[in-house]
Amino acid sequence: MWRASLVTIFPDMFPGPLGLSLAGRALGQGWALETVDPRDQATDRHRSVDDTPAGGGPGMVMRVDVLARAVDVAAPEGDTRPRLLMTPRGKPLTQARVRELAAGDGVVIVCGRFEGVDDRLVAARGLEEVSVGDVVLSGGEIGALVLLDACVRLLPGVMGHPESGTEESFSAGLLEYPQYTRPQSFEGQEIPAILSSGDHAKVARWRHEQAEAATRERRPDLWAVHAARRDKPVTNKTKARE
Amino acid sequence: MWRASLVTIFPDMFPGPLGLSLAGRALGQGWALETVDPRDQATDRHRSVDDTPAGGGPGMVMRVDVLARAVDVAAPEGDTRPRLLMTPRGKPLTQARVRELAAGDGVVIVCGRFEGVDDRLVAARGLEEVSVGDVVLSGGEIGALVLLDACVRLLPGVMGHPESGTEESFSAGLLEYPQYTRPQSFEGQEIPAILSSGDHAKVARWRHEQAEAATRERRPDLWAVHAARRDKPVTNKTKARE
Repeated sequence: MWRASLVTIFPDMFPGPLGLSLAGRALGQGWALETVDPRDQATDRHRSVDDTPAGGGPGMVMRVDVLARAVDVAAPEGDTRPRLLMTPRGKPLTQARVRELAAGDGVVIVCGRFEGVDDRLVAARGLEEVSVGDVVLSGGEIGALVLLDACVRLLPGVMGHPESGTEESFSAGLLEYPQYTRPQSFEGQEIPAILSSGDHAKVARWRHEQAEAATRERRPDLWAVHAARRDKPVTNKTKARE
Repeated sequence: MWRASLVTIFPDMFPGPLGLSLAGRALGQGWALETVDPRDQATDRHRSVDDTPAGGGPGMVMRVDVLARAVDVAAPEGDTRPRLLMTPRGKPLTQARVRELAAGDGVVIVCGRFEGVDDRLVAARGLEEVSVGDVVLSGGEIGALVLLDACVRLLPGVMGHPESGTEESFSAGLLEYPQYTRPQSFEGQEIPAILSSGDHAKVARWRHEQAEAATRERRPDLWAVHAARRDKPVTNKTKARE
C-alpha cells in the first residue's frame, strides 16, 4: 500500500481535507498515512524543537538533531521511500514528479515551521527540497497536503475517472481547454456552437486550439517549453510512429 | 475584519489545518471564514451541481447557474472583495498578489471539482483565475488553503514575528538563505563559522550571497528577473537614495 509519513509538530492537521472526498474514502485501503511528531524526540522537559538562528535574526529555526531523530522514526533503515522537505527554497513541484512519486511506495515528508529547518538536515538525511508556489506559508503542512492530494488521486482505484481529460492536458505541457455543460444559455452566454456539432474530430481540434491559446496567453513560461518541443525537427523514425 | 468566503461542496474541509496553529488562534478575531455549499443552490432533489461536458469527454463539469447562485450568496451586491477561482488554468499565485489580498477586506474563493467549472462563470461573476503550482489536484479546496494560509499569516496580530526574515527574502525576489541553530556540530557537520563571528555586516553579506547562489542554482526563472532588476542602469536620483 502507498504510504505517506509526515514529520510535523501539527499531527492533527492530517489527514484533514484528505479525510474527505475520494481520497478520504480510499484512506486505509488504497493508501495509508501516519504522522511523527518531532516534539516526541525532544530531550528537554519543554519538548523544544527549535532554537534561535545562528548569526542572529528574527524567529526560530528547527533543530537538526531533533528532526533527524524524527525522520529516523518515520523512515527506519531500509525504508527506500523518497524523503521530501517542504520549503520555499525547494524545486517547484511538477506533475511529472507527482507521477513518479505516485508510482512508488509512498513518501516521507518533513514539514518545516518558524523560520525554517537547520540546513544540515538536508544532507544528513538525504532530503529532496520541494516547493509549491512562490508564496510564503506558515509551515510545510499545507504544502504537504497539496503534494499528497496530487499523488493520491493518481493511485489505482482512488479516482472515479482514471482517463480524466484534465490529467491528459497537463501532461502535454498545456493548460486545459475550457469546459461547458448545461444550461445551453446562461445570462446571455451560449455554449460554443462547435461543441454541439457532434463532429468529434472538430471538437478535439477546437479544444486543442483553445488549450494552446490559453497557454500562450496565460503561461508564456509553459508555452516556450511546449513550442520548443513542438518545433523540434523530427526524425523519420519519430514521424513514422505518429 | 478580514473575511474569507469559500464556495465549496466540501465545507467540512474548512478551516481544517487553518483551525490550528497561529492562524487558528486568530480565527474569529483577526479574520473570519464562512462557507457556501453550491448543493444548497441546486434545484433538483439530488442536489446536483454538475453535468456531463458539452462536446463529450470523461468526468463531469460544475454548472454555471448553480455556482453563480452560490457566488451571489457568498458575495451579495455591494461586496467588493476580489473573487477568485482556484484552477490549474489560472495565473500562478505570487507573494506580491498575496500581499495585496491580505491588505484588502478579504476574499471570495470558488473551489472547482471534477473536470472543472463551466467557463462562463468566470465572465458572469468576474472571477480571477488563480493556480498554485503546476500540479493537478482533486479540487480547489487545498489550493484555497494555500492561499488563505499565505494571506492570514500577514494579517496584523496573527504572526509572532512580523519582521520575519523569510518574508523579506522572498519579497526581494530571492530564495531564503540557509538557516542554522544549535547544536554547533551534528554528525560531522558544523554551523558555518562566519555565523559565530559576531560581525553583523559580514553575516548579512554572507547570507545575501547564499540567497543569490541558491536562487541562481535552483530557480533560474527567479534569478533572471532578479538579475535584470539589479543590472538596470540607475539614475543619479536613485543612487542618491541608496
